[in-house]
This record gives sequence, structure tokens and C-alpha cells, in this order.
Amino acid sequence: MRIGIIGTGVVGQTLGGKLISLGHRVTLGSRDKDNEKALAWAGQAGPDGHAGTFAEAAAFGELVINATGGTVSLEALRAAGAEHLSGKLLIDVSNPLVFGPDGGVSLDPVNTDSVGERIQREFPEARVVKALNTLNCALMVEPAKLTGEHNLFIAGNDAGAKAETVALLGEFGWPSEWIVDLGDIAGARATEMLMPFWLRMMGHFGDAEFNYSFRRAG
Amino acid sequence: MRIGIIGTGVVGQTLGGKLISLGHRVTLGSRDKDNEKALAWAGQAGPDGHAGTFAEAAAFGELVINATGGTVSLEALRAAGAEHLSGKLLIDVSNPLVFGPDGGVSLDPVNTDSVGERIQREFPEARVVKALNTLNCALMVEPAKLTGEHNLFIAGNDAGAKAETVALLGEFGWPSEWIVDLGDIAGARATEMLMPFWLRMMGHFGDAEFNYSFRRAG
Repeated sequence: MRIGIIGTGVVGQTLGGKLISLGHRVTLGSRDKDNEKALAWAGQAGPDGHAGTFAEAAAFGELVINATGGTVSLEALRAAGAEHLSGKLLIDVSNPLVFGPDGGVSLDPVNTDSVGERIQREFPEARVVKALNTLNCALMVEPAKLTGEHNLFIAGNDAGAKAETVALLGEFGWPSEWIVDLGDIAGARATEMLMPFWLRMMGHFGDAEFNYSFRRAG
Repeated sequence: MRIGIIGTGVVGQTLGGKLISLGHRVTLGSRDKDNEKALAWAGQAGPDGHAGTFAEAAAFGELVINATGGTVSLEALRAAGAEHLSGKLLIDVSNPLVFGPDGGVSLDPVNTDSVGERIQREFPEARVVKALNTLNCALMVEPAKLTGEHNLFIAGNDAGAKAETVALLGEFGWPSEWIVDLGDIAGARATEMLMPFWLRMMGHFGDAEFNYSFRRAG
């Protein structure tokens, strides 16, 4: 499958590398065509890995992944172009972290809106699914690093798009029964708002090698 | 121990009943002295259960629990009186849920502040610990309802107050190693902001009989 990844950070690079290892073709998109990170990534990714602009990555992909920071995602997707997103599954992995001058972290948007919802509103022809924004990217692509069942969460308005997302996550190693459907795209608020808790738990554990699980009666 | 509970809802009543069963004495405090829910609760609670005003409950308690809704907690604690909270462990169980006209739920405060922090700022002589606001009250007092290890989270500025909280939770049945210290009282933001996720997970499970757990490597 041809996959366009918007964003050249460690999340985009990690997802891109995994997708290529699975036999997909990937274009990693950046603001500028000569982005050094993207070119370096493509240089070591082999013949199925390419670097390009946001628009080139989105045009290339039959499926598009937003791996930019949540505070700049809308701007990046505008540059990618609505015409290159229309009708496609758009997996939104972002969290809208705002780093304060005091080292504190907050979210924008939050509470009554989310990046996932904003993207779906601005690109109504895209089939947006919020996913993978609740854990470290090394775990996104290798869930077996952790022991026992642990969970991913998806949210979106299009049932078919969510099924396609579950299938792709299955290629990463996620059993479908570990993936919880939180409902419509407003569920993106719920998972984006986990970030302050996740950061405190990272402080507790001392590393990012953990994920959520649930206990039930009997 | 004498314990004052601010708030007469199901959370306050459930905690009060459990505390009495453990041998403590409890005054359940309400805005009005003739609150029917509090009087009915005291009527069936036995000789160790009393009903009173917010101020009477706070004055009674060697330890005080805030079990009011988070949007009215400050007002209730002002009525309880700073002089009745000074020097005491104040366990804040609240979540600041705001129910919108469309059935939607949001939080106020959120993101850059929390009820836990507001209480600590307004009552600097109280030793505030945020705790128990991440699960259903039936599970708060009976963790063995669920199978396997699952977690509670505490946050506060006073190490001694957190140790006292862990001891009390131990009486409820929580092993100390299941209780995660998230750090200072600003950690209350993290757990209060779990509520939208918790509500979506309740929708997924179809009931409130679940709690958070974590998976780690090897």
C-alpha cells in the first residue's frame, strides 16, 4: 500500500520504518522539500521510502497518517491539501502539547474540542480516525515489547475507516480485541486528555515503556 | 478515628458506610442541617454515623474528605470553614464535571488548573491529597471486586499526608504497592482529566466495574 506520513519527527520516522518493513511504500512529508531529517530517513529506508513535501506525501498516500505535533497539525494538513486527503483514511496520531516557559505542559485544544475533531471539521471529505496517540512510538509498532494484554483506543465517525485502521494496527501486531472503539471523533478529546496523566506516569515509571490496561470483575 | 465527609451524594455515603464498618466515626456534612439524604444515611448507619452541616462535619473530623461535585467544592469547603480544615489531611475525591445542555460533559477547571490545586491554594493550612477520583465508588471501598492488580493515584504537596492517605486506603483493601504517587498537587490535573476517557470506557464496557492497570516490559 502507498502511505503518506505528514511529519518527520520520531513518530513519523518510526511508523514509516515499520510500514516499509511490512512491505508498504512510504513518503515522509515535511514542510520543506529539502528537510534533512526526511532525506536522511529516506536515504536509509531503502527503495520503498521517499521524502517529499506535505502535499507530495498526501498525494502519494492511499492512506495518510498525521504525525505532526497537534498544535501545528491543521496548518500542515492545509499545506498537504484537502484535495489529497479527500476520501482517504487519515489516521491522526497527534497530541496538542503546549510547553510552557516554566517547563509545564498543557493542551490546546482541550476539553470541548480536540485536534481530531478540528481535522475532521476542516477536512470533511477525509475519513479521520484518532489512534495511537496514547503510547510511546516504539510500542506503537511493537506491542509485544510489553507483557500481557494492553490497549489501544480509536475514535472516528466512519466505521469503515475504523475497520481499516484496526487492520493496519493488526499488521503492527495489535490483536483486534486489544483495540477499543471509543465511538465518534469527539472521543479524540478523551485520549488527547490522557497526556498529562501519561506524563506523570512516565515520571513514576522512569521511562516510556508502559501502556494502559484494564481490570474487570471476575 | 473521627472523619468528616463533605457531601451527601452516593460517593460520600459509600465512603461513610465503609469507614463505619471499619470502626471509624463519621459525620456526613451537607449544606442544610435537615438534609434528608444525610439524615436517612445517619439513621441506618448506627451509633457511629451522624449528619450535620458542612462546618459540623469538618469540625468533627480529625480527617476530612471532600466528596462534593468538583464545581461546587470550593463553596462547600468555605462553608465548612478554613479553621476546621487547618492542619488536617483533606482527601479530595472530586471531579469538576459540567453537564452541557446537549448531554455532553466537560471539565471546569481543566488543563492549567484543577479542583485539587484550587482547594490547596484557598486552604493553604489544609494538607490536601487528591485521591480516589478515578473509579466508581463501589470499587473505591472494595478493590477485590476486580481481578488482578489495578491502580489508584494520589497527588499532594505533603508527604506525610500522602502516607496517611495510603494507610487509610489500605484499610479499604488497597495494597500500598497498587497506589501510584503522581507527585505534587498539580498531579490532580492529570487524574481529573481522565474523566472524559473514563466515561467513554464506561460506554465501551457498559458498566462502571473497571479500573486502570498498566503493562510493562518483561
